[in-house]
Amino acid sequence: MIGGGPDAFIGAVHRTAAIMDGAMDLVCGAFSSSPDRSREMGNLLALSPERVYGSFTEMIEKEKALPDNMRMDAVSIVTPNHLHFKPAKMALEAGFHVVLDKPMTFDLTEAKSLKKAVEKNGLYFCLTHTYSGYPMIKEARQQVKNGKLGTIRKIFVTYPQGWLNTALEQTENKQASWRTDPSKSGKAGCMGDIGTHAFNLAEYISGLQVSKICADINIVVPGRQLDDDGAVLLRFEGGASGVLIASQVLAGEENDLTVKIYGETGGLEWKHSDPNTLLMKYPDKPAEIWRAGTGYLSAVAKHNTRTPSGHPEGFLEAFANHYRNFGLCVQARINGEKPKEEWLDFPGVEEGVRGMAFIDHVIASGKSETKWTDFAI
Amino acid sequence: MIGGGPDAFIGAVHRTAAIMDGAMDLVCGAFSSSPDRSREMGNLLALSPERVYGSFTEMIEKEKALPDNMRMDAVSIVTPNHLHFKPAKMALEAGFHVVLDKPMTFDLTEAKSLKKAVEKNGLYFCLTHTYSGYPMIKEARQQVKNGKLGTIRKIFVTYPQGWLNTALEQTENKQASWRTDPSKSGKAGCMGDIGTHAFNLAEYISGLQVSKICADINIVVPGRQLDDDGAVLLRFEGGASGVLIASQVLAGEENDLTVKIYGETGGLEWKHSDPNTLLMKYPDKPAEIWRAGTGYLSAVAKHNTRTPSGHPEGFLEAFANHYRNFGLCVQARINGEKPKEEWLDFPGVEEGVRGMAFIDHVIASGKSETKWTDFAI
Amino acid sequence: MIGGGPDAFIGAVHRTAAIMDGAMDLVCGAFSSSPDRSREMGNLLALSPERVYGSFTEMIEKEKALPDNMRMDAVSIVTPNHLHFKPAKMALEAGFHVVLDKPMTFDLTEAKSLKKAVEKNGLYFCLTHTYSGYPMIKEARQQVKNGKLGTIRKIFVTYPQGWLNTALEQTENKQASWRTDPSKSGKAGCMGDIGTHAFNLAEYISGLQVSKICADINIVVPGRQLDDDGAVLLRFEGGASGVLIASQVLAGEENDLTVKIYGETGGLEWKHSDPNTLLMKYPDKPAEIWRAGTGYLSAVAKHNTRTPSGHPEGFLEAFANHYRNFGLCVQARINGEKPKEEWLDFPGVEEGVRGMAFIDHVIASGKSETKWTDFAI
Amino acid sequence: MIGGGPDAFIGAVHRTAAIMDGAMDLVCGAFSSSPDRSREMGNLLALSPERVYGSFTEMIEKEKALPDNMRMDAVSIVTPNHLHFKPAKMALEAGFHVVLDKPMTFDLTEAKSLKKAVEKNGLYFCLTHTYSGYPMIKEARQQVKNGKLGTIRKIFVTYPQGWLNTALEQTENKQASWRTDPSKSGKAGCMGDIGTHAFNLAEYISGLQVSKICADINIVVPGRQLDDDGAVLLRFEGGASGVLIASQVLAGEENDLTVKIYGETGGLEWKHSDPNTLLMKYPDKPAEIWRAGTGYLSAVAKHNTRTPSGHPEGFLEAFANHYRNFGLCVQARINGEKPKEEWLDFPGVEEGVRGMAFIDHVIASGKSETKWTDFAI
Repeated sequence: MIGGGPDAFIGAVHRTAAIMDGAMDLVCGAFSSSPDRSREMGNLLALSPERVYGSFTEMIEKEKALPDNMRMDAVSIVTPNHLHFKPAKMALEAGFHVVLDKPMTFDLTEAKSLKKAVEKNGLYFCLTHTYSGYPMIKEARQQVKNGKLGTIRKIFVTYPQGWLNTALEQTENKQASWRTDPSKSGKAGCMGDIGTHAFNLAEYISGLQVSKICADINIVVPGRQLDDDGAVLLRFEGGASGVLIASQVLAGEENDLTVKIYGETGGLEWKHSDPNTLLMKYPDKPAEIWRAGTGYLSAVAKHNTRTPSGHPEGFLEAFANHYRNFGLCVQARINGEKPKEEWLDFPGVEEGVRGMAFIDHVIASGKSETKWTDFAI
Repeated sequence: MIGGGPDAFIGAVHRTAAIMDGAMDLVCGAFSSSPDRSREMGNLLALSPERVYGSFTEMIEKEKALPDNMRMDAVSIVTPNHLHFKPAKMALEAGFHVVLDKPMTFDLTEAKSLKKAVEKNGLYFCLTHTYSGYPMIKEARQQVKNGKLGTIRKIFVTYPQGWLNTALEQTENKQASWRTDPSKSGKAGCMGDIGTHAFNLAEYISGLQVSKICADINIVVPGRQLDDDGAVLLRFEGGASGVLIASQVLAGEENDLTVKIYGETGGLEWKHSDPNTLLMKYPDKPAEIWRAGTGYLSAVAKHNTRTPSGHPEGFLEAFANHYRNFGLCVQARINGEKPKEEWLDFPGVEEGVRGMAFIDHVIASGKSETKWTDFAI
Repeated sequence: MIGGGPDAFIGAVHRTAAIMDGAMDLVCGAFSSSPDRSREMGNLLALSPERVYGSFTEMIEKEKALPDNMRMDAVSIVTPNHLHFKPAKMALEAGFHVVLDKPMTFDLTEAKSLKKAVEKNGLYFCLTHTYSGYPMIKEARQQVKNGKLGTIRKIFVTYPQGWLNTALEQTENKQASWRTDPSKSGKAGCMGDIGTHAFNLAEYISGLQVSKICADINIVVPGRQLDDDGAVLLRFEGGASGVLIASQVLAGEENDLTVKIYGETGGLEWKHSDPNTLLMKYPDKPAEIWRAGTGYLSAVAKHNTRTPSGHPEGFLEAFANHYRNFGLCVQARINGEKPKEEWLDFPGVEEGVRGMAFIDHVIASGKSETKWTDFAI
Repeated sequence: MIGGGPDAFIGAVHRTAAIMDGAMDLVCGAFSSSPDRSREMGNLLALSPERVYGSFTEMIEKEKALPDNMRMDAVSIVTPNHLHFKPAKMALEAGFHVVLDKPMTFDLTEAKSLKKAVEKNGLYFCLTHTYSGYPMIKEARQQVKNGKLGTIRKIFVTYPQGWLNTALEQTENKQASWRTDPSKSGKAGCMGDIGTHAFNLAEYISGLQVSKICADINIVVPGRQLDDDGAVLLRFEGGASGVLIASQVLAGEENDLTVKIYGETGGLEWKHSDPNTLLMKYPDKPAEIWRAGTGYLSAVAKHNTRTPSGHPEGFLEAFANHYRNFGLCVQARINGEKPKEEWLDFPGVEEGVRGMAFIDHVIASGKSETKWTDFAI
């Protein structure tokens, strides 16, 4: 693992997700840019001191030098956005599979370069857009694929948060601090941090790509340099339209990412506050409550569940699904086997490039006086 | 009553709402442009045959000629949009108070003219934007007024319907037929029929007026002449922003008008599917479930409730609240008394003009290639 | 109307329910045991002074003496329990159809006597168990009838209230006062007031009759003479079992009467807090959300709805459904026509006798040291 | 680990829960009564072959013989009920801390004996009543402790399942098979399997002990030997009363364990289908929605959460909380430190004995013709 020191929320999530199913083990780390803090963290995690490194370059070099059966198989990178590209690229070039936190890079150029590195080296790459790891999101995608909704007409995705409704970055809060700092986050604040999740989910479930956008991007809390709120009108290839809303200043909201998709013959609805439920709606018969863990779900939804219906799984399990699928693919590679199709269903470098393009376009559209901005990569 | 023949959904709603509390009585009507059908309806409603008229002109003239204590006090007009202006203006000029279905007129010019007529004649005028009749909507408005949310930052209002997701107007459906016909509905379809409700609610609860809009207006079902779907980015005076979504092609949706408003110190949420609940959200303490019929509500919310908490009131009662308040004002006028402030809280001609301006602007913005359109009357 | 003076909650509900659909008119009343208060109320309701009476005996006698086309057709009795029997019996014997509030009488003997009077005189009799008036309760009954759940196994019905969680009857509260007074309420407090509703609903939906009970009946608030809380184990003819819970001391509860019924092949759930929804559950496929006002409902559910789906109807409309059906039957009788089957679907004298028997048995079982008490009339 | 072979649902849950937080490691196991299957499972879990044992006796003996820093610290026992006592007792006597699945033993005699063994050896013992591991259950208990509800009056706990609504045990289903077999499950089926969870939760949150019960215990599915359904009237020390419902034949139900507790001044409600929410209700102010992961919760609720509010945690995390707390205590013992009070908050041998007594009493009461059965140990 690269990054993920003591105060890092997402580092701990990655570690739990990685080990939860016993499919991966944490064997080494460069947890901080300060070698002392890195060692401290390694200690806390009970790693062998010789495999706790002072920097990611040291880690990648030394691990590469270890014998085949001793070195790490893959690396997780959980640093802030501006520290994604270099370690990811170096790891890929050294032959390690990579798990990387989203958004993929600091800017679109880096993203395209990383995409090339993945393709050139033929390695597995997982970008942890958590929400597509939920079984009922996978079921939603299946329902669309199977034509249950008919031709898609409308896609609404809303990501409401409230934790940045005051200038939290002016306190000691590290999470708020780097996310609102353009030198660490990149061009976008809210749109990069959570807008990309919403964007990814809309495209993942619908199977459609955004073709045009019209964005209203705001800085609501005074003194902030990056957007903390926005709404985006969407047009998709093939004619569907929609709305993406993402905000971090909605007082009292937690993290209730919501997706609603409607087609000619039905609609679906999923809410992060009730993640094991998928609501299917129809014009002429009762709506249906599809539930995780039941026998009537698609194979891919079942594969991404651990417990029987009625035993709620949550955020860590969704995250762990990406790790498990990634791990199964890596293991298959090691064993010289072909991975199953459902194992390959985790977000990768293509999604990463589109996410970075979303950031670029949404910020540009926010500044434009023209209504529609083409979404082209 | 003018309009409201056998097949009219909203005519029956008006009648039930008017009589529910025993405060008004239906005494005469011109229910159809066909005198025979009008008579038939009057018969069904057990009216005296001599007070069932063949046309609205006949009705207004003959009622005006009756002695003071025998003629009607007020008239309800429940015809399609293109037949609002003439009877309303004539009734006002004949000295009758008026209840009129929304949107107020066929176009903005008529709306402004009607406003003048109301002001000139000093009569009561009620525009039946049903949703502001709900007690928890009145409570929401009070909460904003009392500063419970602090300065308002974001206003989201969504009105999802699905009943026009096929070309229902090509069957015998009268409801669908006039609503999709530009010669009867006016410039807008969905935005006039339900968008105006959403617009009215956003302004009513927040106490803020829309100052700029950016609209994406769509005809989704092939062959239709008027919009059946749209999304609008909103800017309000004072800096708040928001999104209005209204659609009649969301397969499986019924009528779940939803409002969410957020300020510096809290947020509120109301859904038509659970109309007796108002959710109040805070950044640092548990959200609260405010309920109709309870002792802790504001006086205006209490005034607009009939039953104790836990005894659900619905659409007809919300509608009846407008009639009751209007009726109390008319009665006070007859008695030479001053109406209470809470009786005056029903939508009127000002809201009607703004609603017609919304239709004008939203259709113009939908066609514009410039992002923002100023909302000015 | 007999009873229903200025402070009476249920009197106002009856009046609104009776006139809502324009099918009935209030023409006369004996609103209070005090002739002055009766006159005052008649005045408020704008009745002709000569048809506001000082006592129910006066009213029944004088109305009977009026010519056919002038006298009332039916009488509503909305007095406290101990004043149900005499006016109801007298009205029936004078040839008037009767609407009576529940529970039917002061004790079981009176109930049986009233049943005889109804049968002897061949008149319509409606006992206002409100909840069976809801369209989705009628749909639930249809689903059971149609075998959708298979053989019924379990019936749970819960009626939670909180308004008597303090000794409200020691304040000036009239509602609390007569309900907790054995000389007015009869043997039971909570079990008579709301337990009978729950009991009626369980039998109405399931179509099964209770055959044995085991009751835990409590006085929770000190100083009270009648039960304010209880739970009852139920056995039904044919082998189903269940639980009935009714309490008026559950702090914070409003009126969320809930029914859950399970059979071999499915289950159903209805909650008064969301009365326009019926949840249908299955062992092997997604649960379904059945909604009032939709096209897929049974004819009887449709007949008991006024507005399209998504326009919530509530308590007053459910109440009004009983009045409308009763009124349609009375009108048919006057016209010499046969009432439709769906009009006859309102609670009557049979339900009233069973309700009074429930009170008797539940109080007896509460005092018994034997587990099961046979339910026999 | 003892038990937890390939088909065992609960074995996998224990393993995930144990390793999720990285606080425990699986080092050895006797996974099956068949040495071959045990080895196969050890292989799957990538354990050293020399620490995969053919029987629990072999495992305990051999591990005991290992040097201090090499042998296991604690053992998890996840076998069917009839195989709990012997390995647990042997492990305790060999000086190992024990985690044991519920219900604690095959009968009450074994339970009492195990309690003595725990006390004599001064070891940590955790009985995995999962539901008390949820943070909002811990918050609920705190609210009661802090007097937020006043004196407790009513306790309702309902555990509805539907998976045994057909004779699943007559197919190859291992889960159904041992649970319905009296030689493996003991005296009770449903009441042992899930009734004990409900009973534990009622006592855990309220802090009150059951003093009397009156049970209706049923075998609903023909051919079954043990109860699959039941309802129990409860009396608690100090005067509160309540109802416990547990059933495995409610078609369409998953696992929605629900608790509602009411006191003089408020009520609380928790549902397993929405486990991160605790509803607090009051007679005179709005109900509150308390949410996991927020800053306003008690220290003990915070300690049992991993992610910020709005990131749902579920069944595995609740389970893992018991393991984490147990592990922290074991680690403290190893380090010679005093465990924190919040670490000690996991169900233990006392709860186990009461659970076995519940089974005994509930089955006895079910057969009794007397209403109340004293609950005494």
